[in-house]
Amino acid sequence: MKALKMAMIGALALGVSGVATADQYEDAINYRQAAFTLIKGDFGPMGAMAKGEIPFDSKAFAGHAANVAAVAQMADNGFIDGSDMGDTKAKAAVWEDRAEFDKQMKGFQTLTQELAEVAKSGNMDEIKPKFAAVGKTCKSCHDDFKSK
Amino acid sequence: MKALKMAMIGALALGVSGVATADQYEDAINYRQAAFTLIKGDFGPMGAMAKGEIPFDSKAFAGHAANVAAVAQMADNGFIDGSDMGDTKAKAAVWEDRAEFDKQMKGFQTLTQELAEVAKSGNMDEIKPKFAAVGKTCKSCHDDFKSK
Repeated sequence: MKALKMAMIGALALGVSGVATADQYEDAINYRQAAFTLIKGDFGPMGAMAKGEIPFDSKAFAGHAANVAAVAQMADNGFIDGSDMGDTKAKAAVWEDRAEFDKQMKGFQTLTQELAEVAKSGNMDEIKPKFAAVGKTCKSCHDDFKSK
Repeated sequence: MKALKMAMIGALALGVSGVATADQYEDAINYRQAAFTLIKGDFGPMGAMAKGEIPFDSKAFAGHAANVAAVAQMADNGFIDGSDMGDTKAKAAVWEDRAEFDKQMKGFQTLTQELAEVAKSGNMDEIKPKFAAVGKTCKSCHDDFKSK
């Protein structure tokens, strides 16, 4: 992930002035918001299955879990320095307490990978606690780092 | 991919009426647009490296290529039937000529996976033709299926 983040920062540093432009901050904001839109889109049906609102399709669930795990690895690439202004619900705390944000993001990434792994079992009894754990990381990070 | 698409359609079919709601079409539109926002975000720095506008960082390039390949697999999940209205630039042709759209989408998915593979080599001479081929699939599909 470090490599990707550096590359985006590299791209940002391209400007003649050596300073990122407003457009580049906007791109970063759009990037992270898009990541969370996808995560939400895949998380929704998983939640509906976990709650029994729609039939449990183990293959589909595993696919959604794999999608969430993949995009979770990408989400933090958009939280570049300087992108705390503009059309964003990210709190200043992301940048003021970056170590804590990174820790929570890392926890989210790890848990989504574990969920994708356990989802392959097709055993909802094993899946449910991991799914709930991922949900908790969403809520905790939103509480600390996202405005309502 | 079929499994995922079915799950999203499954989730859509949940409504009491058995018919997807406007919100659910909007979710599908948001999902596919988010996928393309991420793809564009990762494709940009790859293009800048391929053109020599920023230094070639083989590890970062490979990471971006992996991201694009992962999200390319997800993009078409948002093109559900009925989501041709609303805030979308998707042409009616997506649904009117679905076989051709699916063919082009499949080609895009395959080529992005091949690009992610060749990107691991770190050899820009090998990467460039594959990168150009992916770019061509973007343009071709946009010409046929996306309004300006």
